Amino acid sequence: MITGKNYIGFEVSAKGDTTFKTFNPATNKENEQLIVEATPQEIEEACELAADAFKVYRKMPGVKRAAFLLAIAEGIMELGDLLLDTYCMESGLPKGRAEGERGRTVGQLQMFAELIETEDWREPSKNSAEANTRKMLIPIGPVAVFGASNFPLAYSTAGGDTASALAAGNPVIVKSHPMHAQTGELVALAIYNAAHKTGMPEGVFSNLNSQGVEVGQQLVLNKYIKAVGFTGSIKGGRALYDLAATREEPIPVFAEMGSINPVVITQKALETRSAEIANTYADSITLGVGQFCTNPGLLLILKSELSSSFVETLGKKLSKKPSFYMLHPNIHAGYQGNKNKMITHEAVTKISEAELSSVPNTAAPALVTVDGAKFLKHDALHQEVFGPFSMVVQCEDEAERIRIIESLEGQLTGTIIAEKSDEAKLAPLFEALQSRVGRVVFNGVPTGVEVCDAMTHGGPYPSSTDSRFTAVGIGAIRRWVRPFSYQNVPKSLLPEILK
Amino acid sequence: MITGKNYIGFEVSAKGDTTFKTFNPATNKENEQLIVEATPQEIEEACELAADAFKVYRKMPGVKRAAFLLAIAEGIMELGDLLLDTYCMESGLPKGRAEGERGRTVGQLQMFAELIETEDWREPSKNSAEANTRKMLIPIGPVAVFGASNFPLAYSTAGGDTASALAAGNPVIVKSHPMHAQTGELVALAIYNAAHKTGMPEGVFSNLNSQGVEVGQQLVLNKYIKAVGFTGSIKGGRALYDLAATREEPIPVFAEMGSINPVVITQKALETRSAEIANTYADSITLGVGQFCTNPGLLLILKSELSSSFVETLGKKLSKKPSFYMLHPNIHAGYQGNKNKMITHEAVTKISEAELSSVPNTAAPALVTVDGAKFLKHDALHQEVFGPFSMVVQCEDEAERIRIIESLEGQLTGTIIAEKSDEAKLAPLFEALQSRVGRVVFNGVPTGVEVCDAMTHGGPYPSSTDSRFTAVGIGAIRRWVRPFSYQNVPKSLLPEILK
Repeated sequence: MITGKNYIGFEVSAKGDTTFKTFNPATNKENEQLIVEATPQEIEEACELAADAFKVYRKMPGVKRAAFLLAIAEGIMELGDLLLDTYCMESGLPKGRAEGERGRTVGQLQMFAELIETEDWREPSKNSAEANTRKMLIPIGPVAVFGASNFPLAYSTAGGDTASALAAGNPVIVKSHPMHAQTGELVALAIYNAAHKTGMPEGVFSNLNSQGVEVGQQLVLNKYIKAVGFTGSIKGGRALYDLAATREEPIPVFAEMGSINPVVITQKALETRSAEIANTYADSITLGVGQFCTNPGLLLILKSELSSSFVETLGKKLSKKPSFYMLHPNIHAGYQGNKNKMITHEAVTKISEAELSSVPNTAAPALVTVDGAKFLKHDALHQEVFGPFSMVVQCEDEAERIRIIESLEGQLTGTIIAEKSDEAKLAPLFEALQSRVGRVVFNGVPTGVEVCDAMTHGGPYPSSTDSRFTAVGIGAIRRWVRPFSYQNVPKSLLPEILK
Repeated sequence: MITGKNYIGFEVSAKGDTTFKTFNPATNKENEQLIVEATPQEIEEACELAADAFKVYRKMPGVKRAAFLLAIAEGIMELGDLLLDTYCMESGLPKGRAEGERGRTVGQLQMFAELIETEDWREPSKNSAEANTRKMLIPIGPVAVFGASNFPLAYSTAGGDTASALAAGNPVIVKSHPMHAQTGELVALAIYNAAHKTGMPEGVFSNLNSQGVEVGQQLVLNKYIKAVGFTGSIKGGRALYDLAATREEPIPVFAEMGSINPVVITQKALETRSAEIANTYADSITLGVGQFCTNPGLLLILKSELSSSFVETLGKKLSKKPSFYMLHPNIHAGYQGNKNKMITHEAVTKISEAELSSVPNTAAPALVTVDGAKFLKHDALHQEVFGPFSMVVQCEDEAERIRIIESLEGQLTGTIIAEKSDEAKLAPLFEALQSRVGRVVFNGVPTGVEVCDAMTHGGPYPSSTDSRFTAVGIGAIRRWVRPFSYQNVPKSLLPEILK
């Protein structure tokens, strides 16, 4: 079933001769299957097919598009163990995680299918029957989707970007993530089969392989592409954002990027349940080997005797966490490099670093601590270390803690760990966090992003390129639609919902 | 009352020594008042004050912000004839237009005031009382507003961008349009008084004078500015868009720019009411001396005997229209130059050009015609001529007409003039237009943009830089807000609407 080829509309295509392989971190070996890079001609074909498909797909009744999404979800389930095993083979992640992420992916498709079974999501204007002008949301055009390395399913080929763009009536072209190109192809096959089965136009979906940056660049510059969805590094997202801004017709790029997700722990919370918090956060920091964009990379506490003992406790708990494979040798190398930069930074004190396992590609969790004043002074300490790493900042007082929060770049999340008796005094902390993040969590962990109506997964730059949108939840569809007004349009040409 | 100075928060300020004057097209003379350009220091002060004001203003109850907006509207009315006369003195537009535009401006402020008297505009999530995660829209931060030359009130200092940004809870810094800096100052004074009267924080509004591009550039690059609203030329809007994309933290720029607003007239409509259509369109093309972004600059008809006679009739009607002052000698010169480029283009036939009046700064309407095939061939013919100019394209057949629509750049509006009996066959035309525009009008004219919930004033690039938003109507507020999620947040810290 896995060919290593591209899906260009309804064709399986391999016109190029540049190939690459994916990697199994658990065996420390390349996987055998050759993956064939898409050629400029294949990219152009995919874009032209998408533009043609858009003319038909945008007009299809919501129930038909919903059937397509549901068929994709079914197809993904039908891939069974082959998909799960391929996922594990290309990510080093355990099968339980593969199953969980598959469930999330299928759930997202089902959520958007349910959303578009009626037309309310189009936000039809509420004018009376006699109104001269009516409005609703319509799809923007073909969307290019760049999947994430750390979510081979839920933020990749048929992930949230694809599901929301297809739901809105936009064809999608996926630039498959090179680290899990086989997983991507299997999902592309499920989409291809679903498109056939539910009578979708050719070009409603294409899947392009690429290890370098050229395929993505050509895709973003193609005139038929009207929007871009990206999940990944700041460097990658910003490069696509900048490229799109150079187009004759600039297009929106929604990139969900890095974040260190500050966590504020009040003095009272430390006094009351220091060990419990250390336990919870040792888990959150190492969940998925720290490879989540919502990983808590920055804990802000007040300096005291308690703070030293909390840091020690958390460090000990982290050092006892088992090492586990990271997604890819490159990501592992990135973690080692960035972690070492932090550990060896003159302003920083290393608290603990689990012993590096002799097993290749496994990551040892690490914890460092730094004074608030020094943290404020050194911007280098504000950078994300992608992996099971965290930094505890010991602040002189509440005012310094707030200054630190205000000095942070934009974040996906901010968390407050507090006691009931703290509440009356939390407003300044809450407001400072609110200005820098897309979501505030109380007495919980930032990891785990619930897929629901009320979710915001995005935030001020660089956590996303446009804080006005969310990548997760029903609101994600808003990235791919535009308002359109019908003035004095005869009923025969009005959509049903506006009549 | 007019000082020519800048409003920096609550200070009237003129630290610079670069000055300029506005111009009265009707007397063909500069107006006497010296206007003082804002200095880099004044710009920085305005931005810092805005950032400070944001911390307070964003939290104010909607009813307080509403009172501020209503006080601005009152203040504008209280300026009485001084405002109207200054408006006319700086634009050459008649007093009736000044009054009409003032009414629109005041109406917009009142509409947004009404909107924010309850918190429903925040789109609070509809979860149950037990829900763990809630969401609503919050303001994005200080907004820089660049007013339009052709709407000294409704799209300028207290126009739609300012009203919607202030309504959402964002401070606003206006880069006043140099052609009507005195009008701008009067409105700034009304905002200043309203801010005082209703207890707004200093920095909630500033007004900067500038004739060149430097003030605007510095403003867009300032780190405290979080979004930009612009109405004007493609060149100006794109320059700001490009500049904002170079920032370390890129920010959204919503620019509403050029448009030629294609109008399709069916053969049956021509057969039935050719003279009436010519009448209506002679009026629409010359309304406001053609200085509207929704001016119908392109009429698409099918080639026939009827088409020639329609073109002749429309040409005659246009040539009889009285000349009137354009807004400024520069705009007049631009019109003359661009019109002449079209008239002398090898592919184009001039139908009529009213005699150029000897009165300086007045514009003579002009009409040209061109074959569909030639129009398709020459991109130069697709460009906007800002003023009372229109081009009739005579298409070989319906297929060519649709190809032409598909070849157009993005537009604010598209219009279809058709008979009842055409309706069954209009879907392809309608769909082609829908793909290129933000609003389709049936049997009407594109000029006249109603301020209502159902309005879309925006569209695919270059009619706007982001088709996902509208500059007019209640939806305009969406440009300046971002979703924010409250996860497990205690009731005492939740906004009332989310409890």
